[in-house]
Amino acid sequence: MAQASIPVVVIGAAGKMGREVVKAVAQAPDMILVGAIDTTEEHQDKDAGELAGLSEPLEVPITNQLESMLAFAAQEKQPGVMIDFTHPDSVYDNVRSAIAYGIRPVVGTTGLSPQQIQNIADFAEKASTGCLIIPNFSIGMVLLQQAAVTASQYFDHVEIIELHHNQKADAPSGTAIQTAQMLGEMGKRFNPAVVEETEKIKGARGSLADEGIRIHSVRLPGLIAHQEVIFGAAGQIYTLRHDTSDRACYMPGVLLAIRKVLQLKSLVYGLEKIL
Amino acid sequence: MAQASIPVVVIGAAGKMGREVVKAVAQAPDMILVGAIDTTEEHQDKDAGELAGLSEPLEVPITNQLESMLAFAAQEKQPGVMIDFTHPDSVYDNVRSAIAYGIRPVVGTTGLSPQQIQNIADFAEKASTGCLIIPNFSIGMVLLQQAAVTASQYFDHVEIIELHHNQKADAPSGTAIQTAQMLGEMGKRFNPAVVEETEKIKGARGSLADEGIRIHSVRLPGLIAHQEVIFGAAGQIYTLRHDTSDRACYMPGVLLAIRKVLQLKSLVYGLEKIL
Amino acid sequence: MAQASIPVVVIGAAGKMGREVVKAVAQAPDMILVGAIDTTEEHQDKDAGELAGLSEPLEVPITNQLESMLAFAAQEKQPGVMIDFTHPDSVYDNVRSAIAYGIRPVVGTTGLSPQQIQNIADFAEKASTGCLIIPNFSIGMVLLQQAAVTASQYFDHVEIIELHHNQKADAPSGTAIQTAQMLGEMGKRFNPAVVEETEKIKGARGSLADEGIRIHSVRLPGLIAHQEVIFGAAGQIYTLRHDTSDRACYMPGVLLAIRKVLQLKSLVYGLEKIL
Amino acid sequence: MAQASIPVVVIGAAGKMGREVVKAVAQAPDMILVGAIDTTEEHQDKDAGELAGLSEPLEVPITNQLESMLAFAAQEKQPGVMIDFTHPDSVYDNVRSAIAYGIRPVVGTTGLSPQQIQNIADFAEKASTGCLIIPNFSIGMVLLQQAAVTASQYFDHVEIIELHHNQKADAPSGTAIQTAQMLGEMGKRFNPAVVEETEKIKGARGSLADEGIRIHSVRLPGLIAHQEVIFGAAGQIYTLRHDTSDRACYMPGVLLAIRKVLQLKSLVYGLEKIL
Repeated sequence: MAQASIPVVVIGAAGKMGREVVKAVAQAPDMILVGAIDTTEEHQDKDAGELAGLSEPLEVPITNQLESMLAFAAQEKQPGVMIDFTHPDSVYDNVRSAIAYGIRPVVGTTGLSPQQIQNIADFAEKASTGCLIIPNFSIGMVLLQQAAVTASQYFDHVEIIELHHNQKADAPSGTAIQTAQMLGEMGKRFNPAVVEETEKIKGARGSLADEGIRIHSVRLPGLIAHQEVIFGAAGQIYTLRHDTSDRACYMPGVLLAIRKVLQLKSLVYGLEKIL
Repeated sequence: MAQASIPVVVIGAAGKMGREVVKAVAQAPDMILVGAIDTTEEHQDKDAGELAGLSEPLEVPITNQLESMLAFAAQEKQPGVMIDFTHPDSVYDNVRSAIAYGIRPVVGTTGLSPQQIQNIADFAEKASTGCLIIPNFSIGMVLLQQAAVTASQYFDHVEIIELHHNQKADAPSGTAIQTAQMLGEMGKRFNPAVVEETEKIKGARGSLADEGIRIHSVRLPGLIAHQEVIFGAAGQIYTLRHDTSDRACYMPGVLLAIRKVLQLKSLVYGLEKIL
Repeated sequence: MAQASIPVVVIGAAGKMGREVVKAVAQAPDMILVGAIDTTEEHQDKDAGELAGLSEPLEVPITNQLESMLAFAAQEKQPGVMIDFTHPDSVYDNVRSAIAYGIRPVVGTTGLSPQQIQNIADFAEKASTGCLIIPNFSIGMVLLQQAAVTASQYFDHVEIIELHHNQKADAPSGTAIQTAQMLGEMGKRFNPAVVEETEKIKGARGSLADEGIRIHSVRLPGLIAHQEVIFGAAGQIYTLRHDTSDRACYMPGVLLAIRKVLQLKSLVYGLEKIL
Repeated sequence: MAQASIPVVVIGAAGKMGREVVKAVAQAPDMILVGAIDTTEEHQDKDAGELAGLSEPLEVPITNQLESMLAFAAQEKQPGVMIDFTHPDSVYDNVRSAIAYGIRPVVGTTGLSPQQIQNIADFAEKASTGCLIIPNFSIGMVLLQQAAVTASQYFDHVEIIELHHNQKADAPSGTAIQTAQMLGEMGKRFNPAVVEETEKIKGARGSLADEGIRIHSVRLPGLIAHQEVIFGAAGQIYTLRHDTSDRACYMPGVLLAIRKVLQLKSLVYGLEKIL
């Protein structure tokens, strides 16, 4: 392919997701890793590829010098992409720096406030630059959510079971709550009662989320991250299930985002918008 | 609601599906059963509602007089609908008679040949009359198939497991074969091998359907009718499952078809087209 | 087989379970239905086989004359068995009458109080007669519960999900509560916390049953009766699941009970005792 | 606890299973790692704990000096245990050396021939020393197999589905074949046909293993190692499922074997014998 590779700068490159991204970018035929940023003291100057577990070094050292890396990336022929897996506090500055150098930001950092998201949207708008914020890079989960929204037009009854390892402290999971919100957005009221329910032990019927949807949270060692959306109607059950076993599952979404952000002119939020 | 009810004639009203349809139409607020046709000798003149298991008679006797029933239905204010669960051999005549009286046909009979379907299409076209042929009235299964087709754009690996009671003689099920065909229609080749597979016992890896898709057929007493489509990618599994436990599951599709056929001007094939 | 058939009297023969039992006994090669008792006015004198849906009559009419039927059964060569699916109020009298005629009682009626069970035990003891009380005739569920009790010695973490149609008013199901009790009987405390859990929506973590075991209850149309016991440990999940789709599933347990009660000399409680 | 710890020597300590065992032994309150043997050149003299991913060194270096390590272990107060995850070719010598020093062998190496197993049995017999050969340390899978054998006495119909990542070349899995063998050992013929089956696509009905049992093998990226045994009877399905996600799942079985081998006087084969 004569086309030049997309230059990519990874911020948070020594973190768990960052290392996975370094590996995925290194293996993508149409991308080249040009910078690996991380502020962790102990990883400075280590080779990003070796840290990520590749058998060969990538000759890209971990550094905390974001600005100079962006300047370097900006010299490539093809416009560059910065991908950020850091903290909500540093995202805005990172995004502003990237855009100043003509580098498109893809933000995978979660926990941004609505105000932080709005600030980034305003800045991308002014600069007419593509930018992506993707809280969940799992294509499988986004497909599940979209299929569930479609099914919710035809089924009046639905419950959600999410199952995670027992080191997850909060329940229900953020993704399950978000799924219920998406189903509830059409304004439909689910699960009209046909009998008067009684709980012989409190909590048996799970948590009552948006629009009458029940969410049940199972926590056990040996589980990883799983979600089921179960639709029921007379004589039939329709179940959508997603199982995550490894961070590798997010990489197809990350690579897709890197390719798509180059075609955008403003902020786009959510992987479902670019599928 | 001031609107007149849709008059409905059921052909095959003494059969298993026919009885279910009689019940569903009787309970639909916007429909009225005006005729119940069946050629079975022993059921002549029985009340269609009682035969279907309703506690009250519907005052609609089972009869084998299709033509006079259609003539009767044609006198109603609102245009009528005929729904046919009979045999491929009689469907064409039934459809022609219905259209002659301005009654819209909904055909649920399975096993029509491509030629039979074409004949019906031609006739509906000439008469500018809406007509539906629906081989599978299960909304849940159609949603599953559509969600699977969408997912197949993002996943390269997929297998199908279908599970039925052990009185089902053929394997794989027609629906599983059809699902594989739908996934294969984009021309994508699924399940590229990463190792050379060997079967230590022949048949272990199931049947090889369209485009590299494997179908596995389980047959056990206690099962009813179930299908799973399992997509896999690094670190994730996305599963779509449909379970049927009762013919009642087809009734929302039947009622939808009765309402939609009135808006059509030609033959439409498949429930997915009217969802 | 030269051996005489076991004569069986069914009480509650016109009820849902009773009809199923009539059918099962009629088809068992080593049994013969000699009496079909039911007090329902409208079913008197109907043929028990036809009422149960058999194509041929059994020549055994439904009657409310328990005593004369027992006297009749007592004349058979082989000792007889009475099987009771009625109400807690009538069980004790039925059992006493049966034993008086040398007929062994198998009681499937649920809801007996501990005192009622004790009374029956005392009476069987005095008469040195076998008697069975079986609140759950499902062999599959009993096997599941026994396998779960065994597994609970090796796993410290377990949760239960039970799923039923949405016309079931109470949650958790009696069987799920009973399963948790059986797991808790060894005195082990399950599911020691490794993090401090917080419910973002109340009830997410389900109900807290015996010994730290969580039970989650799903209610949807299209479901029938299902239970999963999920054990977790580092790196593995072990799941036991039972699905019921038809009362027919209880018949192997019923036939087993009829054969086993003849070998007993006192009251035995629970299907697990005779497996 | 005043009791002295069990001294443990791990052979194959630099391998994947070996490292996991080092970690498990180091964390067991009643054991102490006294030797870590591995012949791999590059790992000589590395700390076994650090190699296993522990945050603190164990002060036990990897060495290829088996004899001197056994001699060292033999000096401990409490009798020692050697655990072997190497190759079939070296197991016999390792076992003989261990027994010569009074150290009890636990062999996890798979692929031993019947003759090799017999040789070890003979040697252990002569020396009156406990010895364990455990081809599968997964307690969950052994429990599943035992529960399946019990259920097979009451169900006449059963099929197996095993699901693994698509880098597994052979199908069905060894464990699935072994499970079918265990079910077949009672001599019962499963799955009597009620209709004449026809495969519209060859292989649909899976592989035909022992005694009429069907095994279906699914291979997809994203799967790890999963097995389902599905029993069916009229109106019910009973399913046993095991999911493996990490080698950690074998460690409870390994620790159990280390504790149990000290109570034995001869060779015992299989984890199920010591549960």
